[in-house]
Amino acid sequence: MQQIDLNADMGESYGDWSMGDDAAMLDVVTSANIACGFHAGDADVMAATMRMAVARGIGLGAHPGLPDLQGFGRRTMAIPAATLANMVRYQLGAAIAMAQSVGGTIRHVKLHGALAHMAAADPDIAERCFAAVLDLDPTLVLLVMAATPMQAAAERLGGNWVGEVFADRAYNDDGTLVNRAHPHAMIHDPALAAKRMRDMVRDGDILTTSGRHIPAKFGSICVHGDTPQALSIARSVRAALQADGVHLAPFGTHPA
Amino acid sequence: MQQIDLNADMGESYGDWSMGDDAAMLDVVTSANIACGFHAGDADVMAATMRMAVARGIGLGAHPGLPDLQGFGRRTMAIPAATLANMVRYQLGAAIAMAQSVGGTIRHVKLHGALAHMAAADPDIAERCFAAVLDLDPTLVLLVMAATPMQAAAERLGGNWVGEVFADRAYNDDGTLVNRAHPHAMIHDPALAAKRMRDMVRDGDILTTSGRHIPAKFGSICVHGDTPQALSIARSVRAALQADGVHLAPFGTHPA
Amino acid sequence: MQQIDLNADMGESYGDWSMGDDAAMLDVVTSANIACGFHAGDADVMAATMRMAVARGIGLGAHPGLPDLQGFGRRTMAIPAATLANMVRYQLGAAIAMAQSVGGTIRHVKLHGALAHMAAADPDIAERCFAAVLDLDPTLVLLVMAATPMQAAAERLGGNWVGEVFADRAYNDDGTLVNRAHPHAMIHDPALAAKRMRDMVRDGDILTTSGRHIPAKFGSICVHGDTPQALSIARSVRAALQADGVHLAPFGTHPA
Amino acid sequence: MQQIDLNADMGESYGDWSMGDDAAMLDVVTSANIACGFHAGDADVMAATMRMAVARGIGLGAHPGLPDLQGFGRRTMAIPAATLANMVRYQLGAAIAMAQSVGGTIRHVKLHGALAHMAAADPDIAERCFAAVLDLDPTLVLLVMAATPMQAAAERLGGNWVGEVFADRAYNDDGTLVNRAHPHAMIHDPALAAKRMRDMVRDGDILTTSGRHIPAKFGSICVHGDTPQALSIARSVRAALQADGVHLAPFGTHPA
Repeated sequence: MQQIDLNADMGESYGDWSMGDDAAMLDVVTSANIACGFHAGDADVMAATMRMAVARGIGLGAHPGLPDLQGFGRRTMAIPAATLANMVRYQLGAAIAMAQSVGGTIRHVKLHGALAHMAAADPDIAERCFAAVLDLDPTLVLLVMAATPMQAAAERLGGNWVGEVFADRAYNDDGTLVNRAHPHAMIHDPALAAKRMRDMVRDGDILTTSGRHIPAKFGSICVHGDTPQALSIARSVRAALQADGVHLAPFGTHPA
Repeated sequence: MQQIDLNADMGESYGDWSMGDDAAMLDVVTSANIACGFHAGDADVMAATMRMAVARGIGLGAHPGLPDLQGFGRRTMAIPAATLANMVRYQLGAAIAMAQSVGGTIRHVKLHGALAHMAAADPDIAERCFAAVLDLDPTLVLLVMAATPMQAAAERLGGNWVGEVFADRAYNDDGTLVNRAHPHAMIHDPALAAKRMRDMVRDGDILTTSGRHIPAKFGSICVHGDTPQALSIARSVRAALQADGVHLAPFGTHPA
Repeated sequence: MQQIDLNADMGESYGDWSMGDDAAMLDVVTSANIACGFHAGDADVMAATMRMAVARGIGLGAHPGLPDLQGFGRRTMAIPAATLANMVRYQLGAAIAMAQSVGGTIRHVKLHGALAHMAAADPDIAERCFAAVLDLDPTLVLLVMAATPMQAAAERLGGNWVGEVFADRAYNDDGTLVNRAHPHAMIHDPALAAKRMRDMVRDGDILTTSGRHIPAKFGSICVHGDTPQALSIARSVRAALQADGVHLAPFGTHPA
Repeated sequence: MQQIDLNADMGESYGDWSMGDDAAMLDVVTSANIACGFHAGDADVMAATMRMAVARGIGLGAHPGLPDLQGFGRRTMAIPAATLANMVRYQLGAAIAMAQSVGGTIRHVKLHGALAHMAAADPDIAERCFAAVLDLDPTLVLLVMAATPMQAAAERLGGNWVGEVFADRAYNDDGTLVNRAHPHAMIHDPALAAKRMRDMVRDGDILTTSGRHIPAKFGSICVHGDTPQALSIARSVRAALQADGVHLAPFGTHPA
């Protein structure tokens, strides 16, 4: 029986501003990537979101990002790799402390937004950020974009990693995500997202916008939480996979 | 033979802005309180400062503050105690992670600036912030203003604590520091600071501006690093204590 | 025929986070207080909100606040009055520039949140902040909490001012607002809010929680935009006043 | 008799952190570019720096930058041009307000750090940012890197502009500055900087690291204020030009 993890970014509220319906999404996914205060989230939001996740047995992850609240960590910043690695470590340490306060444990780390794209494009950034994670705790799992230099960097470091594919994003032929600025970057139709994920899980590869298939190892599917369709896409993907007999559960270490 | 610790706030640079002469001060003090990014410091500054401290065998402490860079954490903010406690935990977690990256370990926690004054005035704030520290790691030492409600809060929680007195600050009769806005709040004369500390260490009490003596248990003396006289005050205090046969070393747990 | 202005705080979104339904609220109110980037709002949000307001002929105001995004400017900060005045001037200058970019003009200034409460409690803060406004442009109207030291400060400075009362907030006997932390601070029932405003406009006084009437000059009613009931309260107040034959229009200078 | 302006970036302190010796530099230069709070400076620093500049008859400029205090506005950020233009307008409005408070007037605008480099590389960014400036006040002078797309953008918009060259920076053959990360990017020798400026002013062209001469119209020389040699370079350049009979004065509109 095949098993896969569903992950979503959470804890993206900040102060009086709320974002996403974390409580509802936590009933659908099996892992949560918690924003760590640089691009979204604050210490109160982190604790409250982690508490909800722990109560449901969801796998907890730290989701460090660039120091850019206004841009939600989605604007590339020309920050040296060594500084990025320190930022990842700082946020991860904070997340570990907040998780412990609600009886939880950080099991994985996923880079957010522009930081993830920078790491997917630049092996040096990926390696330094991941090395900071593994140096702090070598048992942590790196959640990487499948079939990108991020995965290769995790492999070179000898760390535990799990590849992920995106339910609501279109893929370029090199395995990177179509830029958000592109009109077809996002998949808004829950049925289409579900069909794509069923096909990709069945075939074990990534389907690109041009119709190519890229072989890929992945153990998790990312659904986003900050779009109007987010919840129905997540539910639709979950239902389709379950209909196919796929077991949904938090990932263990790779290979599962 | 009497023993005492000399502590100073450090790592208070931020980005391209530098503050204090940490390298020189690290040759004088025995413990360093490292800013954690909310009122000063950033992840790079934290790592660099901790690396210097570790190389000299200095006791490492986290120095969490209010989220107010422009005000350097010195402007009281009406933040609920539960939120303050989460902020302390977040910063402490980050500091623990940064310390590990340079081969060091956070041994103590000292609240910074307005946060410290708020905790000295409000037992609920002190208790919640200290409880967050001890909940994360019960072996951590709380560095408290001697003979204030901060010390009482640490005692009620049953945590390890060390009291501190200030070499360059005048005291009110209730044991609190004279407000910085007051003209005589700061002691700028190194010889005067040294004499006061020698007397206070010898007598085991705090001398107030009105000439009162307040009995106090303290194991550490704080010298500040951000004034022009900081370094000469620190050196003067150190020399005076050594001339009195007092041993200068990082504090252990209380009672020493 | 009696005339009154309905004002609401707007442009309180920030980056990817949205707050309130400004478009709907702009169909109800006659004046808009635009957040200026310190407690909420950013340059894009300011321009977009002002553009909508200008298109509907709504009176534009700057709504400067404390530099505290996480606390939404609602946490008192011990900032010296001279610094507060510079912060007000900075934000007002920015708002004037943004307004011009969409063909609008800032007509009034209203202090936000904790800054407003600080000014209502401390005449020195009120005078310095208002003096900064009038020094920049003496034709600007100061929107003040009616019958508070804020109003007295505006009068002493000889500036144009309009008093306001709050549709959704309970009043203490000294004319200040009941603290938000108090369970009965907020009025959530649209019918009750409407009845109170009709009574207060008719009688020209403020009704306190203890049943006292405080004589007050006011030309504007504030309805908030950031609560679930905000829109229905605003519509209910508007309908009740119109049923009483009160004309709703942006305030002119005082006395109207 | 030839005339030229000497400009320097100022007001780059922030809160308790100071940077540069603005008082000394103001005795050497003829124009000051004042940081506007996004990459450095705050409302208090802006007012204090402008007050000193006004007292010496120095030409006042706004120096808007990217929203990145930690990176001092020197880290490229992938921010859309329309958002950058709003950020420039916001900061310029704030600067105009602060200048008025000390009896001064903003005469020119110069983009800072990474924002300047982005504008020098992307004509769309340059045009939108400059259009925001001229739309707010068409009499403002755009201080542009001579012989770059920034200058071309200013020309296309029909605005007043003055070209500048850099006393302490090496030039690539395309007229752009050698990246700060390059070992020879900065010129640290005051005598060398002075000789280069004397030659460039005499010849009316830019000398590149490869020895090429690029014809350029410039009316101002930039000296930086944040390096240890800054002040001696500025004095050396000033003395060398005066020795050549060049008159140093704030620029007027172009052509002078």
